[in-house]
Amino acid sequence: MDDHHRFMREAIRLAFEGMRDGAGGPFGAVVVKNGKIIGHGNNRVAASNDPTAHAEIVAIREACRHLGHFQLEDCTVYTSCEPCPMCLGAIYWARPKKIFYACTRDDAAAIEFDDDFIYKEFEMPAEERDIPAIPLLRDEALKAFDEWRDMDGKVVY
Amino acid sequence: MDDHHRFMREAIRLAFEGMRDGAGGPFGAVVVKNGKIIGHGNNRVAASNDPTAHAEIVAIREACRHLGHFQLEDCTVYTSCEPCPMCLGAIYWARPKKIFYACTRDDAAAIEFDDDFIYKEFEMPAEERDIPAIPLLRDEALKAFDEWRDMDGKVVY
Repeated sequence: MDDHHRFMREAIRLAFEGMRDGAGGPFGAVVVKNGKIIGHGNNRVAASNDPTAHAEIVAIREACRHLGHFQLEDCTVYTSCEPCPMCLGAIYWARPKKIFYACTRDDAAAIEFDDDFIYKEFEMPAEERDIPAIPLLRDEALKAFDEWRDMDGKVVY
Repeated sequence: MDDHHRFMREAIRLAFEGMRDGAGGPFGAVVVKNGKIIGHGNNRVAASNDPTAHAEIVAIREACRHLGHFQLEDCTVYTSCEPCPMCLGAIYWARPKKIFYACTRDDAAAIEFDDDFIYKEFEMPAEERDIPAIPLLRDEALKAFDEWRDMDGKVVY
């Protein structure tokens, strides 16, 4: 458990650092492989004007650059707060083996971050959400999927 | 409807282009504000070794750079496929007013992308998921949230 605590404390340290630097909200994360941190992140939404620059996304992108690959095989993500839907989705695409988290989505809601609200929106029918999603031109777009299915030499991820 | 079709066809064109260039899967997206495209994206996971480089994320980041802001106020997202959980989460953080999508998550599953699988994982208890999430050191991380709550001059997003 000592290592788990050490890595989580580094994620928490990054949360404090990013918040105090004005980079963004109080969130930090690290990606660990073979006992070594290969990706660091803190929330940088405000500093970079990038709504996707959450701590986990920043850490995953750094770790993937380090590995030269889009998969975080045998990696563990330590994050100072339960991942929001965007970050949990990113973690699934990166495919580490496990996540450790400290604060919860309810704790984030208590300081007025939308994590819990967004999780609840996911459960609504797409056309009734706060940001509605409307179907359009499916038949035309399916032709790209057909071409992908039949393509040789593609990189599958 | 003509404009909606025009913008969606540009998203579909980007899907074909990115796939044929070997950048990644057959997915494209544009962000539109006041009748003008301000963000373009195609999937670039393979080319950039970045699992977060989905079409919508790429388009959102370009649009935010263009606006110099982390919010896509009064914008519309056109995407050639229903957003995956990561991209839907990113859209919620960017806060455009509406989404149009062409293919569905079931269409994506039919060509072996994980979108539908990930949506289903979201509904499982965190510790029982394929990538389990384990709580750790919440009390220590909450101190960063307390400091954020009491901070003057922070950028709220």
